[in-house]
Amino acid sequence: MSTKDIQTAHLRTSGKRLMVRLMELAEISPIAGGGNCRLALTNDDKLGRDLVVTWMRDLSMDVHVDAIGNIIGTWQVGAGLPVMTGSHIDTVRTGGKYDGNYGVLAGLEVVETLQREGFTPQRPLAVAIFTDEEGARFAPDMLGSLVYVGGMPLEEALNTPAIDGPRLGDELTRIGYAGSMPCPGEAPHAFVELHIEQGPLLEANNVRIGSVTGVQGISWQEVTITGQSNHAGTTPMSLRHDPLYVASEIVVFLRNLTRRYGGHQVCTSGKIDVHPNLINVVPASATLTLDIRNTDNDILIRAEREVAQFLQEIAEQEGVAISTKFLTRFEPVQFDERVIDIVHETASHLGNTVQKMPSGAGHDAQMLARVCPSGMIFVPSVKGISHNPAEHTDAADLQAGADILLHTMITLTSATFA
Amino acid sequence: MSTKDIQTAHLRTSGKRLMVRLMELAEISPIAGGGNCRLALTNDDKLGRDLVVTWMRDLSMDVHVDAIGNIIGTWQVGAGLPVMTGSHIDTVRTGGKYDGNYGVLAGLEVVETLQREGFTPQRPLAVAIFTDEEGARFAPDMLGSLVYVGGMPLEEALNTPAIDGPRLGDELTRIGYAGSMPCPGEAPHAFVELHIEQGPLLEANNVRIGSVTGVQGISWQEVTITGQSNHAGTTPMSLRHDPLYVASEIVVFLRNLTRRYGGHQVCTSGKIDVHPNLINVVPASATLTLDIRNTDNDILIRAEREVAQFLQEIAEQEGVAISTKFLTRFEPVQFDERVIDIVHETASHLGNTVQKMPSGAGHDAQMLARVCPSGMIFVPSVKGISHNPAEHTDAADLQAGADILLHTMITLTSATFA
Repeated sequence: MSTKDIQTAHLRTSGKRLMVRLMELAEISPIAGGGNCRLALTNDDKLGRDLVVTWMRDLSMDVHVDAIGNIIGTWQVGAGLPVMTGSHIDTVRTGGKYDGNYGVLAGLEVVETLQREGFTPQRPLAVAIFTDEEGARFAPDMLGSLVYVGGMPLEEALNTPAIDGPRLGDELTRIGYAGSMPCPGEAPHAFVELHIEQGPLLEANNVRIGSVTGVQGISWQEVTITGQSNHAGTTPMSLRHDPLYVASEIVVFLRNLTRRYGGHQVCTSGKIDVHPNLINVVPASATLTLDIRNTDNDILIRAEREVAQFLQEIAEQEGVAISTKFLTRFEPVQFDERVIDIVHETASHLGNTVQKMPSGAGHDAQMLARVCPSGMIFVPSVKGISHNPAEHTDAADLQAGADILLHTMITLTSATFA
Repeated sequence: MSTKDIQTAHLRTSGKRLMVRLMELAEISPIAGGGNCRLALTNDDKLGRDLVVTWMRDLSMDVHVDAIGNIIGTWQVGAGLPVMTGSHIDTVRTGGKYDGNYGVLAGLEVVETLQREGFTPQRPLAVAIFTDEEGARFAPDMLGSLVYVGGMPLEEALNTPAIDGPRLGDELTRIGYAGSMPCPGEAPHAFVELHIEQGPLLEANNVRIGSVTGVQGISWQEVTITGQSNHAGTTPMSLRHDPLYVASEIVVFLRNLTRRYGGHQVCTSGKIDVHPNLINVVPASATLTLDIRNTDNDILIRAEREVAQFLQEIAEQEGVAISTKFLTRFEPVQFDERVIDIVHETASHLGNTVQKMPSGAGHDAQMLARVCPSGMIFVPSVKGISHNPAEHTDAADLQAGADILLHTMITLTSATFA
């Protein structure tokens, strides 16, 4: 053990303080069943931001907002580039209490614990709240962190329209979070994000902590099928050009594709809009979303090609027109091996069971991985439920994750990366 | 030829007058592409009703409104029960100009032609506008004629909620069409309805007129599938309970059922609503409508049973809950053989090609068939397109239909039914 290790080995976060902040943030935008609806840059998102910024200031952190609305709170101690943690506080429409919020508030808990214990890290510690991670109001998801690392021009991001109409830049101004710090932002010394797993694997394996090795590649497309609207009673089946039937065949094709591919392949159609959407009218058009993910980019590309081929075949067979629009395409991300190992060893050292695993969901850490050594810590999600009011993680697991975040961040302050 | 035949054989309606009225009515609620959106008991429906009532009064017809808002205009001539024609002027959201409107306005054209020619029928002639035939705003469809013949209690009908909220009875009052004539209404001597085919068969067979033998049985149900909402990236396929996937399998099952059954079997899913309907969330629930029709009630019952069996199987297989609600169930209807023959012979006598055929769509005539000898006349729909702004029937066919309606109604005034 080094001197530092001896100094810090006893440090533990307060699970109680963390839980108080989690519940206070969740009170801003509650929905039935104990969940949250805090879509990015809405009035509720503003209230959430205001609350967390207040807490940052209570901890004497410097708070800066950048041009895409990312909030960076920094505890200005030590020297050099900061070790950064963070996540997001926007939610999907039917979100839970922990997704994103946990990572941000655990970051504050790390700072508060170190301040109370009188421990001064070698580098500044920063906690980030990234804008529009969910992509539920502005596509693509992880937009704030993408712009932070220079992956999307600021102007393009500001011009993104919300699903309910307004331009992202105007909404930032409206809620008072169009900041002055330039984008892209400064690359930190290292980045580590603490997050709930949002999947069932840790629970199924009876393991408490995941040391995340990377993130699945994500392919999002919107498929618009245009057929021939007609009367449901008088149009013989042989003369139909039915977009909802074609959409259904696509959904079934995707399911069969996952059966053939096996492994980490997942496909989801979560959204469909049919026009005119009447019981006795063969629809004129249907718009269906496809969400295809794999940890292996070659397999992801193969799946995309198979889908494109199937769309062509069924369009011809059913006499409909099919157009596709790619909404998001992220290649699989590999996290830094050194950060993965630090997380793994820290978790184990603190007495937790731990496994290395890929993330099925996209996270801000995958954007930061483009500019600095990055990694993630997962804690279990009960029954794997997320993006759902029933999302839950046991309090003991939440605290264990925060403790691992604390010790991982301390270790990262003294780690040297070539 | 009888004396009456000699007196009336030369009579022809004015296709031009009919067209002027059709276009004037269509101007009330135009939509892109030349169609109409005049959902039942909306402000636009009121304007349409007001216009047609004005025309009825111009023809010195007695206008009465009943308690469910049906409008009956009667030319009080001759003696005894009236021969009635009529249809509806409400449309689906993406309706055309002819569906319903044509039958009502051709009825007025029959009256105007006879009045101008100074011919007095043996019985009163009545033209009905039935409330909410389409069922696009209030379920079930053909609601007004159903109540007229006593097939649904008035109170139940008045309590029907609109898809946009308000109660049917309140909407009737609001637009000034809660009439004083009691329901059920008086059964006429006979009923004949002129309508566009809304299907492609007459055009495909190069035949101008259909003498309609009956109406397909209709089974409408709403299927609600409740699964487990979850994250699209982190939930392994094997652990999913995905309502949109299940809905898709149901739509594909229905299509395969029509392939196995052949003949007159049609199945349509025209409406689906998914919650929360987000690209990266496995849905929590999906509500899908099923519209199943056959001319043979035994086959229709078999189809319903097969669907129920499949729903049970797939619910078990995918671990979702499926509930069904029957919205409408009409048995196939057989029209009166004498009325069918009168329509057939009249069409042929006037020099038209004609075929006997069932109707794939539901019509008010099928309700009147419960209380008096009834039948229908079909004219071709170009490309079979209906419930669509592109709905079209050639002007010559529209006039031919109106002429057949005129001579069929005259013949019915002197027909005796046992």
